[in-house]
Amino acid sequence: MGAIVTLLTDFGTADGYVGEMKGVLLSRAPDVRLVDITHEVPAQDIECGRLTLARIWRRFPAGTVHLAVVDPGVGSSRQALAVESDGRFLVGPDNGLLSPALLLAGARAVALQAPGNAAPTFHGRDVFAPAAAALASGTPLDALGLPVTEVVVRRTPEPRRRDDGALAGEVIAIDRFGNAITNLVGRRAAWLEVAGTLLAVRRTYSEVASGSPVALVGSTGLIEIAVRDGNAARQLGVGRGSIVVLRNA
Amino acid sequence: MGAIVTLLTDFGTADGYVGEMKGVLLSRAPDVRLVDITHEVPAQDIECGRLTLARIWRRFPAGTVHLAVVDPGVGSSRQALAVESDGRFLVGPDNGLLSPALLLAGARAVALQAPGNAAPTFHGRDVFAPAAAALASGTPLDALGLPVTEVVVRRTPEPRRRDDGALAGEVIAIDRFGNAITNLVGRRAAWLEVAGTLLAVRRTYSEVASGSPVALVGSTGLIEIAVRDGNAARQLGVGRGSIVVLRNA
Amino acid sequence: MGAIVTLLTDFGTADGYVGEMKGVLLSRAPDVRLVDITHEVPAQDIECGRLTLARIWRRFPAGTVHLAVVDPGVGSSRQALAVESDGRFLVGPDNGLLSPALLLAGARAVALQAPGNAAPTFHGRDVFAPAAAALASGTPLDALGLPVTEVVVRRTPEPRRRDDGALAGEVIAIDRFGNAITNLVGRRAAWLEVAGTLLAVRRTYSEVASGSPVALVGSTGLIEIAVRDGNAARQLGVGRGSIVVLRNA
Repeated sequence: MGAIVTLLTDFGTADGYVGEMKGVLLSRAPDVRLVDITHEVPAQDIECGRLTLARIWRRFPAGTVHLAVVDPGVGSSRQALAVESDGRFLVGPDNGLLSPALLLAGARAVALQAPGNAAPTFHGRDVFAPAAAALASGTPLDALGLPVTEVVVRRTPEPRRRDDGALAGEVIAIDRFGNAITNLVGRRAAWLEVAGTLLAVRRTYSEVASGSPVALVGSTGLIEIAVRDGNAARQLGVGRGSIVVLRNA
Repeated sequence: MGAIVTLLTDFGTADGYVGEMKGVLLSRAPDVRLVDITHEVPAQDIECGRLTLARIWRRFPAGTVHLAVVDPGVGSSRQALAVESDGRFLVGPDNGLLSPALLLAGARAVALQAPGNAAPTFHGRDVFAPAAAALASGTPLDALGLPVTEVVVRRTPEPRRRDDGALAGEVIAIDRFGNAITNLVGRRAAWLEVAGTLLAVRRTYSEVASGSPVALVGSTGLIEIAVRDGNAARQLGVGRGSIVVLRNA
Repeated sequence: MGAIVTLLTDFGTADGYVGEMKGVLLSRAPDVRLVDITHEVPAQDIECGRLTLARIWRRFPAGTVHLAVVDPGVGSSRQALAVESDGRFLVGPDNGLLSPALLLAGARAVALQAPGNAAPTFHGRDVFAPAAAALASGTPLDALGLPVTEVVVRRTPEPRRRDDGALAGEVIAIDRFGNAITNLVGRRAAWLEVAGTLLAVRRTYSEVASGSPVALVGSTGLIEIAVRDGNAARQLGVGRGSIVVLRNA
C-alpha cells in the first residue's frame, strides 16, 4: 500500500491548481494515497497555515509526507524545503509555514532546486509535488538537495507576565465557529479577561447558558473563548491580536 | 484493501480539525480508505447534517463506516453513539444526526465512553474517530460500548391533509443551487402552491423557460422548487419552513 | 490497485449530491480510488469547469477516469457523453465541458443512455457515476453507447491582431487570488495594457513592490495580471471579458 501524502494549501479548489498537483503526484507515485487537509487557508495567510499544520502533522503515522503550500513569495529567492522530522516528511516554502516540524529537535531540512522549466508562479506543481512524490516513493531526503542551515521560523507569540502577576496573551486564531483561540496554555481555577468581560475558565460549552460567552481549555491545550450556540469573535468583537489576560481565581 | 470511512462534519477544513481526525483514523487503521462527504454543513446545523446523511449512507457498500460530527452539545451529557444498521456502521453524537440509520428496522446502537483524556470540546478527534477506526478494523459493535435503549430521533415533518383535500407541506432544505426541497412526496398531475404562485409539477427544469419557476420531483423523490438557470429560494423568497400546498390537477 | 476516478462538479458538498455519487462509484467499483478535483465550480458555470478540466485532465496518468458534471441542461435533450482521449476517460454532459479532451486528435465519444429509472434532475448519480464506474472497472468505451458524431464544443476565444500590430485579447478567468488570466500566450519583452494601465510582462510577482500590479506568464503559459500581495481583479476592476492588449516592448 502506498505512502500517505497530505495536501494543505490556500489555493481553493475551483481553479484546478490543486487538481494539477494531485495529477503530478499520482503520475509520479501511482500508489500514493492522497489526503486533503485543507485548501481553504485564507489566501497568503502563512500564519493560519502554520497553525493548521501544527495541529495535524504528528497526528499522521510515521512515513507520511505533508505537502504544504501557502507561498506568497513564490518565484522570489525564498528557499524551497523538504524536511524530515519525527519520522514524517514535509515539503513546502521556506517562509515559516513548516516551523512546527522544523523547530522539533532532530529535524533536518534540504533545499529543493527548481527545475529549469518550473513555472515561477507555481512551485506547488513543479517543485513541491515532485519532491513529495519522490519522498513518498522512498527517495531519501538527502537525495533531494543540500542541507540548509538557516530557515525562516515563525512562532506563536509568548504570553507576558505582568507586574500584577496576571498573564497577558492574545488571540492567535479565529476558527470557523467564531471561537477565539489564545496563546495561553489552559488551566482551570482561573479567570480570563477579554474585551472588558471576565470569564471563568470552564470545562465545556454546556456549563453556560445558550448565547453566553465562555472561556475553556481547547482541544490543543490552549484557552479559547466561545459563545455557546453563537459566534464569539462577532459577539465579543475580538480578532487575531486581541489582548486577553489570565488571572488566578 | 481497507474499509471505507466517510466523513461528514460542520468543521470546515481550514482550522485543521478534520485533518486531526484523519490523522487519528490513519494512525489507528492504516489501511482505511477515507472519503469526504462534506465539511461544509452550516455550523451546528444538525438538521442539514441529518438530511445529507439520509441521502448518502445507504449508497455506500456494506461495511462502510460513516463518521458524522455536527455536535453543538459536545462535552455535555449527550450520549456518543456507534450504530450498526443495514450492514453499515455510523458513529456520531446522539442528537438526531444519525436518525436515518437509527430509525431503520434492525438498527443497533451502543454508547461510547469518552476516555479520561478526551478533550471535552473535540469528541470528533478523541471519541468518534477512534471508534470509527476500530469498526473499520473489524472490532464488533458490541465491543465498543453498552447497548443504548433511548436515542434522540429527528424526523422530517409530515405533510398534513387539509379539509379541502390538498396536502400542506413545507420547505425542508435549500440546496446550493437555491432549489427548495419540500417534504411532499413527488407525483405528477398535480399543482404546487408556493409563495402565492401555482406551479404544475413537471419532469425537469427544461420544461419551462429560462428564469421561470418550476416544481418537479427531485432526485430523492420529494417535490422541489427550482428556477431554471436561477435561484428559487432568492427569487421566490422561500426558506426552510416555508409552507407549500399540493393539489390534484 | 483500483483505477483513479476524479470528480469535478458545481454541486458544493453540503447537500450530499457528491456523497451520493461517491457511494454509487464505490458500490459499483469497490477498488476505485476517488480524487476530488473540485465541487466549487460556480453553480452552472460551464466555462469555469471547462478551464479547470483543461488544466488537469492530462496531468493524471493514463487510465484515469474524469467524472465532470456542470450540467444546467440535465433532463433536456442534451446528450450524455463518455470520451476516450489520449489514454484517459471522461464522462459528463455534452455542453462543452469536456471540450479540452474532445478537441484532441484521436478523441472518441459515445452517447450514454439514461436508464428508465434515472432521476431527470440528477444524471450525475444515475448516468455519469455508473458510466465512470464501468470504465474504471475495465468496460470498453464502445460497450457504453453508440459513437456520437456531433458534440458541443467550447473554445477559449482567440486574440485578435489589430491594425497597429498589437494583439487584443481578454480576461478568461479570475482565480481565487484575484489574478486575471488572459487568452494571450505569454512572452516577455512585451507590454500589456489593461484597464488603462501599461504593465511590463515579468517573470514573477516579486519583481514589483507589494501592492503593485504585475503582468506575468502564468503556469499554463498564458499571461495573467496579478497584484503582489493583493487582488488584481478587485484593485484594477477587471473581470471575465475585460479587454487586454499586448504590444511589443
